[in-house]
Amino acid sequence: MPKNQPDMNAPACWTVIFTSVRTDRDGGYAETAGRMLELARSMPGFLGVDSAREEVGITVSYWDSPEAIRAWREHPEHRAAQARGRKEWYASFTTRVCKVERESRFP
Amino acid sequence: MPKNQPDMNAPACWTVIFTSVRTDRDGGYAETAGRMLELARSMPGFLGVDSAREEVGITVSYWDSPEAIRAWREHPEHRAAQARGRKEWYASFTTRVCKVERESRFP
Repeated sequence: MPKNQPDMNAPACWTVIFTSVRTDRDGGYAETAGRMLELARSMPGFLGVDSAREEVGITVSYWDSPEAIRAWREHPEHRAAQARGRKEWYASFTTRVCKVERESRFP
Repeated sequence: MPKNQPDMNAPACWTVIFTSVRTDRDGGYAETAGRMLELARSMPGFLGVDSAREEVGITVSYWDSPEAIRAWREHPEHRAAQARGRKEWYASFTTRVCKVERESRFP
């Protein structure tokens, strides 16, 4: 199974799709990415996350409300990481907030 | 920029988040995946796609309506690929249809 599957027993689910292209600057990136994952997991309303990177990096996180997403976006430590990301680590990125309307699973 | 960015001038945007874990069976997988990408691009309402695989594979495709997503899901050639995916290529997968509520981009 994909790791950290969201608990879809939650009455509703929102997702943040973060797609990014990295620069070639790595200083502190892995440590910060790991810390942000740990921090997200500790936030109220966090349901799960999947992440993969090849040419493009895609991180999809799942949350129980738009308010939970807002609190995550505005967490001071996350804000600092975002600022550093824009300066150092990302050539470009797009963030999309979505409402999950339907899901199906195999098996 | 992430490849194949959806045209967000479209009045609305829906997305299909497909997360999967592969089996170790590769026969025909790459060819079919490439053909499905080509086919998706040719479908009405297709806006873009991003894809990456590490431990988990994530493919996020963007569409201008739920009807476009339905037509893509039900395309006979796609149906055949889905059936083969369940039999051969995927240990597990989750498909989520979402409405994009908001997006922001850098730079």
